[in-house]
Amino acid sequence: MNVDGQPQRTIWLGADGWSVEIIDQTRLPHRFETVTLCSLSEAAHAIRAMLVRGAPLIGATAAYGMALAMREDSSDGGLENAYKVLQATRPTAVNLRWALDDMRDRLRPQPEDIRGEIAYARAAEVCDEDVAINSAIGDHGLEVIHAIHDSSSGDGPVNILTHCNAGWLATVDWGTALAPIYKAHDLGIPIHVWADETRPRNQGAALTAWELGQHGVSHAVIADNAGGHLMQHGMVDLCITGTDRTAASGDVANKIGTYLKALAAHDNNVPFYVGLPSPTIDWSISDGVGEIPIEERDQEEVTHISGKAADGEMVSVQLTPDGTAAGNFVFDVTPARLVTGLITERGVCPASPEGLAGLFPERV
Amino acid sequence: MNVDGQPQRTIWLGADGWSVEIIDQTRLPHRFETVTLCSLSEAAHAIRAMLVRGAPLIGATAAYGMALAMREDSSDGGLENAYKVLQATRPTAVNLRWALDDMRDRLRPQPEDIRGEIAYARAAEVCDEDVAINSAIGDHGLEVIHAIHDSSSGDGPVNILTHCNAGWLATVDWGTALAPIYKAHDLGIPIHVWADETRPRNQGAALTAWELGQHGVSHAVIADNAGGHLMQHGMVDLCITGTDRTAASGDVANKIGTYLKALAAHDNNVPFYVGLPSPTIDWSISDGVGEIPIEERDQEEVTHISGKAADGEMVSVQLTPDGTAAGNFVFDVTPARLVTGLITERGVCPASPEGLAGLFPERV
Repeated sequence: MNVDGQPQRTIWLGADGWSVEIIDQTRLPHRFETVTLCSLSEAAHAIRAMLVRGAPLIGATAAYGMALAMREDSSDGGLENAYKVLQATRPTAVNLRWALDDMRDRLRPQPEDIRGEIAYARAAEVCDEDVAINSAIGDHGLEVIHAIHDSSSGDGPVNILTHCNAGWLATVDWGTALAPIYKAHDLGIPIHVWADETRPRNQGAALTAWELGQHGVSHAVIADNAGGHLMQHGMVDLCITGTDRTAASGDVANKIGTYLKALAAHDNNVPFYVGLPSPTIDWSISDGVGEIPIEERDQEEVTHISGKAADGEMVSVQLTPDGTAAGNFVFDVTPARLVTGLITERGVCPASPEGLAGLFPERV
Repeated sequence: MNVDGQPQRTIWLGADGWSVEIIDQTRLPHRFETVTLCSLSEAAHAIRAMLVRGAPLIGATAAYGMALAMREDSSDGGLENAYKVLQATRPTAVNLRWALDDMRDRLRPQPEDIRGEIAYARAAEVCDEDVAINSAIGDHGLEVIHAIHDSSSGDGPVNILTHCNAGWLATVDWGTALAPIYKAHDLGIPIHVWADETRPRNQGAALTAWELGQHGVSHAVIADNAGGHLMQHGMVDLCITGTDRTAASGDVANKIGTYLKALAAHDNNVPFYVGLPSPTIDWSISDGVGEIPIEERDQEEVTHISGKAADGEMVSVQLTPDGTAAGNFVFDVTPARLVTGLITERGVCPASPEGLAGLFPERV
């Protein structure tokens, strides 16, 4: 999508033909800065320190991380080491494992001297496939928005609540949850987005607000606490979120707090959809709440927060009394019974084993 | 309760016998500062700018505000003006209206020259009554905690989730939601409190964490998004919140986000109790969601946040892109069907018209 009117992806090959460029998303929304990755360890750091985040973009970065690693050591040992280093960066995102498995399976049978070349070609393909998948998610989700717009009596906007950032910044382009919103906006359907700020890392306040603003989509940021009230009072027509991992049962792991919004949507008959590319589906898991491991991160993400001070400098401030303990669970799992539908690149299906099996019969 | 080992109330008469002292709660948790109120307008400002907050403390401050006003103008016009000025400070808290009605009804029949004296005496009584009410809420809520502790198999703590600050800082002393916790802790029942940070104003991260820490109660601050995950995984035995206004139906208006936690508690069979002094009950309202007006505050409370920078100074930082709009709804309403019980100064009752009528037959 556009930044300052110019088309932009979140990851691309450098002009030198081998280094990898990314947007440093920890600097957004106050500064737009790119970073050049030149090694496996820099790619791993970019994922671990969340310069890149969002399941699809993590997968794409891991694919390029494997390519960078092949420049350093294309032996079998180098391949295994790269797999392990990248796999250890984030525990929950299934796209990470998917991309790493894909790269390893393709590279292992090849002679060492062409593994680098193959890795770069495949990483570029992974990125292009992600863009195509997200565009298709956008087209299918657009039908959901269209139907709501057509059935509404007034001429107000379709009010859509989203949580965290599942926009183009979380993918290579388009986004998952936001792809239908961009498609609808571009078609002239009036849209207003309620963007949950998404504590503790505020991806909604920082990233979703920034990318919607750059694209000209009407939106307002709300505290994560507000969605239930809005739904009780008819101010939300539709919820769409992304997901970091979807169980074969239709249970959805996504940013902490998603489950609370799904409960509120269910309690108020607001449709709750999840946009996901099929690599996000973990076909091995049938009980999302019981089986999906939930990452815990540094307490300081809760006790402190960063923002732009009056002088324009980025400042971290402490919110809690000195020495206060904090719990920082990063994801939660929304049971399939609370999800109206899954929007995939192949279409929209019920959040159930049968629904997913209908769209992906080859996986059952 | 204690501050630095010394017993402290949130509001008290100054040494001069007429000025009124309060804790400036906007400075907590990083600084403990008191402010002296010398006029009606200073009392109104303290409520409006949230130097004092919490329904019971707002009521007590309004009572003293009437007393200060009687020093300035004890005529019928002065009385009406003070009522109007104080009533306009905050729209939702029913204690405010209760305290103002009580004061006006007592003062109007009296000769002008003794209205000041009567007002001060009554304001002191309002404060003492609040302390007695909250202590009784603590005793009744203690029985709920006792029962959970007795029925638990392990010897771990009773894990209690609370939202916002309904501790002694929200009242004159003891608190409402936290009174049972202090009573249980003082009796040696092991307690661990999950304190929702409570965006946008972070009363949980700042105030609940501070007062629990001062009293030595084990606790951790969590993002408002986290409670659902904790409840899904058996990490919460009990929720207790306060309320700003309780409908005669048992519907509960409280800090935005309370409804989301009640939904999660209901979905996971976690008991959800609300501690409330009877002045918080609005007997005129039977449909909380439809009838209780919800205050909207400045967008900047969402787009910006204050905290302590590394150099110890308080700094406000901007979280959103320049010019981003925000929605800032301050309360939501939790339907009675999601509330396990109401803990009042007269005992615990179901959240229903019958439950409340059983404890307060004189109001029906």
